[in-house]
Amino acid sequence: MASLSLQHHTNYFLSRALPTRPMPRPTFSVRMSLQETGPSIAVVGVTGAVGQEFLSVLSDRDFPYRSIKMLASKRSAGRRLTFEDNEYIVEELTPESFAGVDIALFSAGGSISKEFGPIAVQQGTIVVDNSSAFRMDEKVPLVIPEVNPEAMENIKVGNGKGALIANPNCSTIICLMAATPLHKRAKVLRMVVSTYQAASGAGAAAMDELELQTREVLEGRSPTCKIFKQQYAFNIFSHNASILPNGYNEEEMKMVNETRKIWNDKDVKVTATCIRVPVMRAHAESVNLQFETPLDEDTARDILRNAPGVVVIDDRKSNHFPTPLEVSNKDDVAVGRIRQDLSLDGNHGLDIFVCGDQIRKGAALNAIQIAEMLL
Amino acid sequence: MASLSLQHHTNYFLSRALPTRPMPRPTFSVRMSLQETGPSIAVVGVTGAVGQEFLSVLSDRDFPYRSIKMLASKRSAGRRLTFEDNEYIVEELTPESFAGVDIALFSAGGSISKEFGPIAVQQGTIVVDNSSAFRMDEKVPLVIPEVNPEAMENIKVGNGKGALIANPNCSTIICLMAATPLHKRAKVLRMVVSTYQAASGAGAAAMDELELQTREVLEGRSPTCKIFKQQYAFNIFSHNASILPNGYNEEEMKMVNETRKIWNDKDVKVTATCIRVPVMRAHAESVNLQFETPLDEDTARDILRNAPGVVVIDDRKSNHFPTPLEVSNKDDVAVGRIRQDLSLDGNHGLDIFVCGDQIRKGAALNAIQIAEMLL
Repeated sequence: MASLSLQHHTNYFLSRALPTRPMPRPTFSVRMSLQETGPSIAVVGVTGAVGQEFLSVLSDRDFPYRSIKMLASKRSAGRRLTFEDNEYIVEELTPESFAGVDIALFSAGGSISKEFGPIAVQQGTIVVDNSSAFRMDEKVPLVIPEVNPEAMENIKVGNGKGALIANPNCSTIICLMAATPLHKRAKVLRMVVSTYQAASGAGAAAMDELELQTREVLEGRSPTCKIFKQQYAFNIFSHNASILPNGYNEEEMKMVNETRKIWNDKDVKVTATCIRVPVMRAHAESVNLQFETPLDEDTARDILRNAPGVVVIDDRKSNHFPTPLEVSNKDDVAVGRIRQDLSLDGNHGLDIFVCGDQIRKGAALNAIQIAEMLL
Repeated sequence: MASLSLQHHTNYFLSRALPTRPMPRPTFSVRMSLQETGPSIAVVGVTGAVGQEFLSVLSDRDFPYRSIKMLASKRSAGRRLTFEDNEYIVEELTPESFAGVDIALFSAGGSISKEFGPIAVQQGTIVVDNSSAFRMDEKVPLVIPEVNPEAMENIKVGNGKGALIANPNCSTIICLMAATPLHKRAKVLRMVVSTYQAASGAGAAAMDELELQTREVLEGRSPTCKIFKQQYAFNIFSHNASILPNGYNEEEMKMVNETRKIWNDKDVKVTATCIRVPVMRAHAESVNLQFETPLDEDTARDILRNAPGVVVIDDRKSNHFPTPLEVSNKDDVAVGRIRQDLSLDGNHGLDIFVCGDQIRKGAALNAIQIAEMLL
């Protein structure tokens, strides 16, 4: 159901071509349907939205692997899956699943990561974890390959040592893909972010619910509210993450704390307001940046045009700027509306608008780029 | 078509009750279907989304009138309209339309206001104009009745003198309804706003297009793009207003400039990023406020609870905050997510999230509150 629905969204919701540049990737002179070289890998949570995207990205990027295990909960075990012309049976995740596995890509929720991540590491597996379970653990690198690859430079496949590497939150990744190149030039002192987040962040079932609700509302029926407690069709609402004692929700605090860790800058000031909008699979973010050093918008645009994994869409004449639809199923994060912030003097501020595919660069692609760096 | 569709949205899209307090209004001991006392009024652009809402608000608030003229373009002239049990024929707007009219409510676009506003004023009519035509004219008061009623204190019906009064932009009204009470206490130095704007801001046809596109996309067809040049269903995009040389669009600069005029504070720093979201008729705004004087969140919440025309929805435990759906067809602007901004020290900042009905408080209601102050 989920993958059908995702496919369906892919077909429907992608209407325009985005100018993309190929991402740097390892090249192989011979491509085999089941590689004889490369690591043994496992995908944990393979039936979920991100799990499915792991497979899609592995295939798109010709990721080399000797073998691949499809792991999921007991409920999904036994399902058949075709991947790169081979048929697989989804296996139940158990402590024994990781024997001989070099790299495990986890996206099955924080509690599964907490339980099985350390077990895998003990068996010599390098875990790339998409959950929030280990992100703020000081011993675990939190990595966006284009931003802070140095954080994981000592971790490699082949020495038999297991390790954990955390994939940042989707909103953090998408924001920092655009903000970091500017930060490296002019040092961000303060960042004010408002997000426009897609259904996909809450999983495939949330995407299905948005579609179902929309049909129901258009037919004059009451919307089905299972994943979210309120109407999502033709509505927006504050992110459904729990609210913490300081009034921020968990999603917002991820942006605050993960930015500090990824930038290795405990002093950077970040505030965020995270909102869900009725969009399928790509997030947008309105980002206000305050710099230590002046940075004019033309320089910023040039920096972003040359930034890896970033595409600038900033056509003022035709009012063409990034949209979630346009970046859906794309690797690059798109940035536009690049302009000098009128509210800060001396070119000390910029406003930008960023869009990125939540499932892809916000999750699966980033994790697989991390895995590529392990080889 | 338009009013049918609006009605239809009203029925579909309002699912929960919003706690409201009655707005202050004039009271009359006898209510007649066609009043013998009160001003003679005219509604210009009566067939549009805001024009229809003018009628609805006039009726809801028992606005007294001696007579009412229904004015629109030649194209709509001759259409029949039932209002408060009387039937009217829509008349073509001409220079002669304003003879004997005390108050004219304009919402027919800037060029109509520019052409016919001064003609009406010359004939002794007080024009309350919903367009942007005169907002930044130094001689024209720009008024939110709860915020700056003093700006129009010398203008009254009955002395035979015409005048222009401008209704602010919808996004400005909704933002300032919440920001002003805090500004009055702690002085806002800088405001960073990101909007989540509904279809209604582009008129009834845009609402229809959003609905049509959504049906088309769900049926696997290409979306009809007439009002907007890109897909709106399941997508968001930078506001369609023209981009100015400084990179801001006109909608954003309205927020910057109108805030300064309404607050009578040329130094207040404002930046805004205006985005359309696939919502029918209420805007949302993520507002970051930086204050001169410290203001803690509990005090801010109390101030907002006592602010006229504002309702606080800020239930952290049940994750219940304002949504566009919940304020649709409501008078009050709702504010929530009130929290101390972590990125500013010493309680010098707050983040808030505001929602308001774009057609109602963002346009028709505000104009009619202005008209009430004229009596």
